[in-house]
Amino acid sequence: MFKRLALIGVGLIGSSISHAARRAGLVGEIVGASPTPATRERAEELGLVAKMYADPADAVRGADLVILCSPVGTYEAVAKAIGPHLQQGAIVTDVGSVKCAVVRDVAPHVPEGVHFIAGHPIAGTEQSGPDAGFAELFDGRWCILTPGDAADKDALAKLQEFWRRLGSEVEIMSPEHHDMVLAITSHLPHLIAYNIVNTAAHLERVTDTEVIKFSAGGFRDFTRIAASDPVMWRDVFLNNKDAVLEMLGRFSEDLSSLQRAIRFGDGETLEKLFTEARAIRRGVIHANQDTPQPDFGRRATGDAKVTQR
Amino acid sequence: MFKRLALIGVGLIGSSISHAARRAGLVGEIVGASPTPATRERAEELGLVAKMYADPADAVRGADLVILCSPVGTYEAVAKAIGPHLQQGAIVTDVGSVKCAVVRDVAPHVPEGVHFIAGHPIAGTEQSGPDAGFAELFDGRWCILTPGDAADKDALAKLQEFWRRLGSEVEIMSPEHHDMVLAITSHLPHLIAYNIVNTAAHLERVTDTEVIKFSAGGFRDFTRIAASDPVMWRDVFLNNKDAVLEMLGRFSEDLSSLQRAIRFGDGETLEKLFTEARAIRRGVIHANQDTPQPDFGRRATGDAKVTQR
Ligand SMILES: NC(=O)c1ccc[n+]([C@@H]2O[C@H](COP(=O)([O-])OP(=O)(O)OC[C@H]3O[C@@H](n4cnc5c(N)ncnc54)[C@H](OP(=O)(O)O)[C@@H]3O)[C@@H](O)[C@H]2O)c1
Ligand SMILES: NC(=O)c1ccc[n+]([C@@H]2O[C@H](COP(=O)([O-])OP(=O)(O)OC[C@H]3O[C@@H](n4cnc5c(N)ncnc54)[C@H](OP(=O)(O)O)[C@@H]3O)[C@@H](O)[C@H]2O)c1
Repeated sequence: MFKRLALIGVGLIGSSISHAARRAGLVGEIVGASPTPATRERAEELGLVAKMYADPADAVRGADLVILCSPVGTYEAVAKAIGPHLQQGAIVTDVGSVKCAVVRDVAPHVPEGVHFIAGHPIAGTEQSGPDAGFAELFDGRWCILTPGDAADKDALAKLQEFWRRLGSEVEIMSPEHHDMVLAITSHLPHLIAYNIVNTAAHLERVTDTEVIKFSAGGFRDFTRIAASDPVMWRDVFLNNKDAVLEMLGRFSEDLSSLQRAIRFGDGETLEKLFTEARAIRRGVIHANQDTPQPDFGRRATGDAKVTQR
Repeated sequence: MFKRLALIGVGLIGSSISHAARRAGLVGEIVGASPTPATRERAEELGLVAKMYADPADAVRGADLVILCSPVGTYEAVAKAIGPHLQQGAIVTDVGSVKCAVVRDVAPHVPEGVHFIAGHPIAGTEQSGPDAGFAELFDGRWCILTPGDAADKDALAKLQEFWRRLGSEVEIMSPEHHDMVLAITSHLPHLIAYNIVNTAAHLERVTDTEVIKFSAGGFRDFTRIAASDPVMWRDVFLNNKDAVLEMLGRFSEDLSSLQRAIRFGDGETLEKLFTEARAIRRGVIHANQDTPQPDFGRRATGDAKVTQR
């Protein structure tokens, strides 16, 4: 589909795109750029790219597809640096977890005749770096594109096909709506997970050792989410402030009413709210975004429940 | 170790105890009690027990070990019903997720010469009912016992050995401290998970379909926790009010300061807090309470990442 793909950043998402694009035979050659020498060395060693560059401008020369895969806080500088070196007719896209800020930061630096279409694959793990990627990451997941009205129809169709062949289904929406949807399905969950882990770490009456030892009662799953990359998430919150604050307001309002129900021993309200939450869970399983397999904290020996049944 | 084990309630925890006790050959005979005919039938069909009774008083006759495995809100009535029928020298214990309220509700109904020692295995999944249990549930997990000073030493030693042979490590603490530790490691995480799922379900600007479709960004993991049994959790919150409200206060305070950092674009504070959260995660993995395997929402075909590596 493409002769030369340039990945700006080869962490979890960039390296997974490399694996998945090679699995499907979508690109002739892949090159990359990243600031840290160790990352560049490792990306070449793993065969993720034919060549890594320190300067993203060098990586995009001659590329007909450029994908920004670094934290969103770096996009403006990257766009400024690569702008003058982009090839006519090339498609520039990204994978950033926010979209309004990305369109605002990147679009002005993309020259006429180059097609910029912002995107975001809704797939990930809590790990990062070039070793974290794998080809199956996008399989059965959604990729959201936020092209805007002026986007080139052919470029959009080609990018959609690219994501489908990486394993994803594609959904088109506005950057504004994307940021609202992701604020509740991804940004707020991460914020809350980070928060409870920090609350637990600073108690006087319960030690960190106890928190860790007895984490199998639920806390464990929050520590997993809170293990995600701090710089990536800092940039997400700095760049999706309004939607996150709106969702956080709703969350706190609802939490206050749960708190009230606990304080006054209102079991009926608690049971009703807990029961309603199950319907959404059934939807998630039905939509194939998780399995009904129970989770009890897998161990190095594998998931006993799954292998046993 | 025991001639006759009576399980009052054979849901996830009761059925798992049956599996694990039979795996280790710890008991001669197992009987059970539960109010719903369908559950009684299923428990016998699965061979979890030799016989199920509708009345817990019938189940405990002749039992030298009695374990309460029903929601904690039922304990007082159960204790009252079984009290007069308990065999001299028998051990009575429980698996309830709170301990002060259980000691308060159960102890007065246990006659002289019968040893009551409250307990709580820190292990579980989000599923419930007699089909949900499996022998490995307690392997490598902790079981907390809260015997109090007056407890019989021999009975305590025997119960500790029982839990070790079910696969667990045993920790002794006071009911008060248990309730504080579990408020942060289990009760608050569940409350927050239920809350965000409900917040997400009642938005005007994002539909339920969108919340479900794009849940792979983090929300998915919260729906899993929020799939736990509503009655069990209602009883937990009604019976550990003070500790939960204390932890909730701390959580909300911390969340307000994160909210402030987002509002004022304070990236330094955000990155610092997110980085600190990683240390606790490393502790959880080091303590074998979770694996470092990345989670990306397993599918029915198995965990591609795990099988692939
Ligand atoms: N993780 C997820 O679950 C997920 C899901 C969907 C989308 N995203 C989005 O995907 C993007 C990357 O996330 P990730 O999880 O792949 O992060 P990651 O594993 O931490 O990788 C980030 C990569 O960006 C590179 N980088 C940093 N600054 C750069 C710069 N100025 N120019 C070029 N490259 C730079 C890093 O290189 P060095 O090692 O050399 O510093 C590294 O290779 C983010 O925008 C994020 O919002 C993440
Ligand atoms: N789930 C966890 O992760 C977890 C972890 C540690 C401890 N615990 C504790 O373990 C206990 C059981 O939880 P679970 O997850 O096993 O729940 P579950 O799967 O919902 O099972 C509850 C069982 O209790 C029975 N029951 C209900 N009312 C009863 C009564 N009045 N007398 C006798 N039996 C009665 C139910 O029988 P019917 O079907 O006939 O109604 C069912 O067999 C709770 O106290 C909970 O706090 C749970």
